[in-house]
Amino acid sequence: MLSYINENRERFLNELLDLLRIPSVSADSKFKPDMLNAAEFVRDRISEAGADRAEIFETAGHPVVYGEKMIDASLPTVLIYGHYDVQPADPFELWNSPPFEPVIKNERIYARGSCDDKGQFYMHIKALETMLATENLTCNVKIMIEGEEEIGSSNLGSFVSAHKEMLRCDTILISDTSIIANDVPSIETGLRGLTYVEVEVVGANRDLHSGVYGGGVANPINVLCEMIASLKDENGHITIPGFYDNVEDLTADQRAALNAAPFDLEEYKKDLQIDDIMGETGYSTIERTSVRPTLDVNGIWGGYIGEGAKTVLPSKANAKISMRLVPHQTDDEILAIFTKHFESIAPASVRVKVTPHHGGLPYVTPTDSLEYKAAEMAMEESFGKKPIPTRGGGSIPIVALFEQELGCKSILMGFGLDIDALHSPNESYGLFNYYKGIETIPLFFKHYAALKNPAKS
Amino acid sequence: MLSYINENRERFLNELLDLLRIPSVSADSKFKPDMLNAAEFVRDRISEAGADRAEIFETAGHPVVYGEKMIDASLPTVLIYGHYDVQPADPFELWNSPPFEPVIKNERIYARGSCDDKGQFYMHIKALETMLATENLTCNVKIMIEGEEEIGSSNLGSFVSAHKEMLRCDTILISDTSIIANDVPSIETGLRGLTYVEVEVVGANRDLHSGVYGGGVANPINVLCEMIASLKDENGHITIPGFYDNVEDLTADQRAALNAAPFDLEEYKKDLQIDDIMGETGYSTIERTSVRPTLDVNGIWGGYIGEGAKTVLPSKANAKISMRLVPHQTDDEILAIFTKHFESIAPASVRVKVTPHHGGLPYVTPTDSLEYKAAEMAMEESFGKKPIPTRGGGSIPIVALFEQELGCKSILMGFGLDIDALHSPNESYGLFNYYKGIETIPLFFKHYAALKNPAKS
Repeated sequence: MLSYINENRERFLNELLDLLRIPSVSADSKFKPDMLNAAEFVRDRISEAGADRAEIFETAGHPVVYGEKMIDASLPTVLIYGHYDVQPADPFELWNSPPFEPVIKNERIYARGSCDDKGQFYMHIKALETMLATENLTCNVKIMIEGEEEIGSSNLGSFVSAHKEMLRCDTILISDTSIIANDVPSIETGLRGLTYVEVEVVGANRDLHSGVYGGGVANPINVLCEMIASLKDENGHITIPGFYDNVEDLTADQRAALNAAPFDLEEYKKDLQIDDIMGETGYSTIERTSVRPTLDVNGIWGGYIGEGAKTVLPSKANAKISMRLVPHQTDDEILAIFTKHFESIAPASVRVKVTPHHGGLPYVTPTDSLEYKAAEMAMEESFGKKPIPTRGGGSIPIVALFEQELGCKSILMGFGLDIDALHSPNESYGLFNYYKGIETIPLFFKHYAALKNPAKS
Repeated sequence: MLSYINENRERFLNELLDLLRIPSVSADSKFKPDMLNAAEFVRDRISEAGADRAEIFETAGHPVVYGEKMIDASLPTVLIYGHYDVQPADPFELWNSPPFEPVIKNERIYARGSCDDKGQFYMHIKALETMLATENLTCNVKIMIEGEEEIGSSNLGSFVSAHKEMLRCDTILISDTSIIANDVPSIETGLRGLTYVEVEVVGANRDLHSGVYGGGVANPINVLCEMIASLKDENGHITIPGFYDNVEDLTADQRAALNAAPFDLEEYKKDLQIDDIMGETGYSTIERTSVRPTLDVNGIWGGYIGEGAKTVLPSKANAKISMRLVPHQTDDEILAIFTKHFESIAPASVRVKVTPHHGGLPYVTPTDSLEYKAAEMAMEESFGKKPIPTRGGGSIPIVALFEQELGCKSILMGFGLDIDALHSPNESYGLFNYYKGIETIPLFFKHYAALKNPAKS
């Protein structure tokens, strides 16, 4: 198969670049037409790859693309999951090249979605093509690529439960995560959950003159700042009553294993150009960003933000706040206690509103499962090194739901790197990683089929 | 003179409406041409009123309009000060009619600048016309209308010191303040000073994925909120070391006099539609908004503020913060201690920058001065009630400078009302107030001339 991949290297890349040119931003309704273009593009590439089914399913939100290649009912079935939507690209002024005009620089593809997740899910379509063209397909394949992952997959849950039969499979393979380094392969065995809310603090019924009213009435921005500040104590511990009630405490061994992963604090600070890190007292950076819950303000706005100075005491202030959750916390429970607490700490001089955006459950994959072993063997074969199990800090809300609805585990075999700048300006994906993924995926199928049916191999 | 004013009622109003149609926003450079249009309009109206001099003086910023009518060197000279620039009109969506298309509704003029300060300084031009047309001018008159009051009058200081001879006068008359009610005339005997800064908090060198990095590095928005929250304690007391060192404590009598002014807390809350007020413990609303210093965030922004949700950990966050100052505090001193303190409370994980916007000194007029007595007599004559001395919460940075440079006091004889919504959407000015001002100003000249030269009267 390697030779086939090498012969088609250029075409495999150009197809991805075409996909990256479509600004499929799910969060902003003005990109709705581009979302459909992206879905059609994905459907057509799946069918060209040799699938015997490739369709677009409408949902209440953005459509889901589904395709499959069923070769033998006696063989295991692998469901590929990915998403064709991307994060908004702003702030545009920080991009060195336009986010939707991909460029190759220093062996990397620069574009919004190059890694998250277009570059990663497209590897699977090219891997399928490769396995079929070289008659190496060892499993039945189903592919589901959604368009709402970056906005919480709000409609995928109902889609999945409405199509359980169509989606029935033995395991789910997802490439939407990272490895530690190109010479240090790793597999994420856990993801954090997410609760995302928007809050509004309203004071007077109109913007006021800060001289005439200043000092006499609540300033919604000052109040919002005070409320946000009060959500953490001096140890970076979240103060919302009950927030940690269901958080699992790792054993000393689990913590040791986690902290055994290679991590260079000086490199980390140098890459981010920060003089110091900041986080919850008593935990390492690896723990803070993977097995501990967080609370971050993702956006804040209020008052006059134009050029120059305006002495206004604004009528309201807003913020977008998200919390990353860890196993045994649920997004519904955290949404409820956050809302209750936030409302309870508001002074009588303002009115507050909490609007939920989206959420998702945390997730953990056991490292003794067949799919984990298959991924481990595949990566060891392609990288020449056994991958390290890690815990990821990000969230793919849907994986927990897959387990509930389809009754099988997901395996997170991703090929990104921390330097890919996901969700940031100048997102990129290494050519090495793109081709390494296309090379590794067929090996997963090979080993998974063998492990499922030892007789046949 | 009353009959002349009545005969020209309509024209006096239409001229003001024409001035209000010019969007002379000094804070935003895109309005530069409109600023010049406004200056030329004012110059032409001054000369039409009968001044024997009316010119536009260029400055490093927006131009100053100057005019004069010198009738007799033995008579006192009054310098009129006002400003033709206005506050930015946003948020536009909250205006019931376009801010620069004035409309008359319920006997009020709705437009940005209708009260602050176009409506108020234009009364003086019409009063001058009236005094000349009816041969009632009893003083020499100088008129200086600037274009940078809303952005701190940064260039007026050098203009004044460069033209001391031209501006020489016995007193300065300013209408840029309010009365308590149309049947409760008052004169502001004090103004708060102002220190206005913009702050920036920078974390990592790029926006980050809040899942991958969340919990491990400083979030500049959270940090900014914590820093802002720490600037006040639970009593609404500002925590910046030395902030209150020079604040004058009023005597029990002074406080009693101040609080004797009519004030209805229930009305106040009803007008603003708030359930409760908020401010420094131990002081009344009147005191909090006039003789006590404040710290208000006038604007804040950072991270993703678009539609939907973006799980970003932003690289930086910004805020505009202003402090209202009271007698004996100086804007330079407060700027210095704010900057020092704000930098000192920043955690090592972020970098902060404090950029000064503009400032001004607080000011107090003695109530035993000739100009105060003249204003008191003029208002008593036109309103039929003796005006109450009050302390204003707003700032006219330039008045303290006038005293330094020109060696004379300013008298703040304003005709606005709290309901005028200065700096807010739907700013308005009462027709009653506009005409009452035109009627009262000549009476000030009459009484001032008489008080200065008892012999002549």
